[in-house]
Amino acid sequence: MTINRQWRLKRHPEGMPGPEDFELVEEPQRAPADGEVATRVLNLSIDPYMRGRIAQARSYARGVQVGETMVGGAVAQVTESRFPGLQPGDVVETMGHGWQTAATLKGDGLRRLDRSTGPFAKLPLSYANGILGMPGATAYFALLDQGRPQAGDTVVVSAAAGAVGQIVGQIAKIKGCRAVAIAGSDEKLAYCRQLGFDAGINYRTTTDLGADLKAACPDGIDVYFDNVGGEIHDACMQLINLHARIVICGTISNYNRMGEPDLGPRNLRLLLITRSVMSGFLFTDYADRLDEAVNDLAGWLIEGRMVYREDVLEGFETMPGALARVLRGENFGKQIIHVADPD
Amino acid sequence: MTINRQWRLKRHPEGMPGPEDFELVEEPQRAPADGEVATRVLNLSIDPYMRGRIAQARSYARGVQVGETMVGGAVAQVTESRFPGLQPGDVVETMGHGWQTAATLKGDGLRRLDRSTGPFAKLPLSYANGILGMPGATAYFALLDQGRPQAGDTVVVSAAAGAVGQIVGQIAKIKGCRAVAIAGSDEKLAYCRQLGFDAGINYRTTTDLGADLKAACPDGIDVYFDNVGGEIHDACMQLINLHARIVICGTISNYNRMGEPDLGPRNLRLLLITRSVMSGFLFTDYADRLDEAVNDLAGWLIEGRMVYREDVLEGFETMPGALARVLRGENFGKQIIHVADPD
Repeated sequence: MTINRQWRLKRHPEGMPGPEDFELVEEPQRAPADGEVATRVLNLSIDPYMRGRIAQARSYARGVQVGETMVGGAVAQVTESRFPGLQPGDVVETMGHGWQTAATLKGDGLRRLDRSTGPFAKLPLSYANGILGMPGATAYFALLDQGRPQAGDTVVVSAAAGAVGQIVGQIAKIKGCRAVAIAGSDEKLAYCRQLGFDAGINYRTTTDLGADLKAACPDGIDVYFDNVGGEIHDACMQLINLHARIVICGTISNYNRMGEPDLGPRNLRLLLITRSVMSGFLFTDYADRLDEAVNDLAGWLIEGRMVYREDVLEGFETMPGALARVLRGENFGKQIIHVADPD
Repeated sequence: MTINRQWRLKRHPEGMPGPEDFELVEEPQRAPADGEVATRVLNLSIDPYMRGRIAQARSYARGVQVGETMVGGAVAQVTESRFPGLQPGDVVETMGHGWQTAATLKGDGLRRLDRSTGPFAKLPLSYANGILGMPGATAYFALLDQGRPQAGDTVVVSAAAGAVGQIVGQIAKIKGCRAVAIAGSDEKLAYCRQLGFDAGINYRTTTDLGADLKAACPDGIDVYFDNVGGEIHDACMQLINLHARIVICGTISNYNRMGEPDLGPRNLRLLLITRSVMSGFLFTDYADRLDEAVNDLAGWLIEGRMVYREDVLEGFETMPGALARVLRGENFGKQIIHVADPD
């Protein structure tokens, strides 16, 4: 009998979520019904969006209720299959996995990761939760479809060393842009430099964010890829050029103060005089185009035109702490929890 | 000898501009050089954007300096021509006229208003400063190109009885939308109802703007056509639907507090979760497509599918007071200053 360990929501956190907001529960794994597969988890993904799912505020998806297993993506290996398209031993990725170690899942909608050919013959399976999955496709479509970078443009990226940001900056460089990183440590900025970012700003240590930004963007900002919101957003808005594009991809700066008002300058007049466009991005709208992004990103990785960094923690028990870590910006690269290796 | 009366900027106003910020000067009209025409003014236009031009804040066009003639559009009749394309007696419209009664203008760039055929054979010449000019084309392109209304959408318009707003609402109705007016008097709202708006809110008398807006928009807001900014903007943002379009066309609520911070909720998370688009609009970007808008709008007027209201003041000396009147929202329809009739 296989034991399925699960992290369930114990209460809706106020402020930063911590281990006390989750409960570790063990249950026997449920046998798969027709159309289902039994799996064992290989690695799990921690992403900032999870904070929104455990809040009680309006969001784009139904929130996790107290007592329910926490939502999240993972890569898992099939141990038993009652779904025609999958065999035991197959490795799959799904955003609908949840924080558990032995999930029984509907086969329909799982992404099979082919280990004999294609991207995952050459690249780690965990990339399916990162650059070759939702975060990668987010960077790809949000920048290319909404940011519309042109050669010579200045592209500013906040949370630039994170799962999405590091990819955005590198695509911007491939497209011939000046890429400017905003991140929370000098170590992260040094990494961004290695990735090819042209300049960087440490928002935690700067004494004048506006001035530093101006120095890093002598020709103003054409694309602001916003993962954070808040005062960094405000500072970037001051430098937008004519017909700038501001892509709102995340608002991590206020993920932990849901309920409290998030006040700042109304930048409507700046939008008007520059005739700029600010748009919200969510991967969901592009989910059926995932392969486009994966093919391009894998190609760039394999050609050595792009690098990608993971921050791997070991063990299922680290999940709640890892979420807090990501929300505090302490991770360095895409946060992954490693549990087991595939057969 | 013809006297050219001019309103010149005496000082940059703080807060609401008034007659004390302008100076009335008389000069002999300058004789036209090669390529120029001498004109006499028929009517002048007062528009909210003028507030931005006399502010010292960053804007989309060079501001008026102290001692310079105030900028603005007008309809004028040619009295003498040294420009091949125009004859004495021709009536022209230009945004580059300025607050003066006997301008000498470059012929190049003037729009000749044909009184024998086309829209101005049937409709008043002053409409060239309104529905058949910049404000009309602003309503037309900002709504259709950026608002992209679909039949069944809810379109909310602030400053709905103004020069632009009244046209936006009527185009929205022609496109099969629910149109909701926000305006500052019950009289204006009654007028909006006559224009076909489905519901209206008096922002000056409401005790709960959010609740009134919700009642007026039971299916949420698909397009918010924003002429005002400020708290009305904030309230509308709370009701935006998935993939909503917010068109920032004016920010009249803070035209008179340049310098003072305009603080409000950062609505980035609302943009993100609804994947909406907020964009700044300025007619300049569409100036070369003016005829498209004029043809459609004139057609709708002549067919009786659209009505248009002007608020006409008599006499050149009323200009500074008229600007303050528009900025306070006291005009009712497009503000026009009538000076003379054409020969």
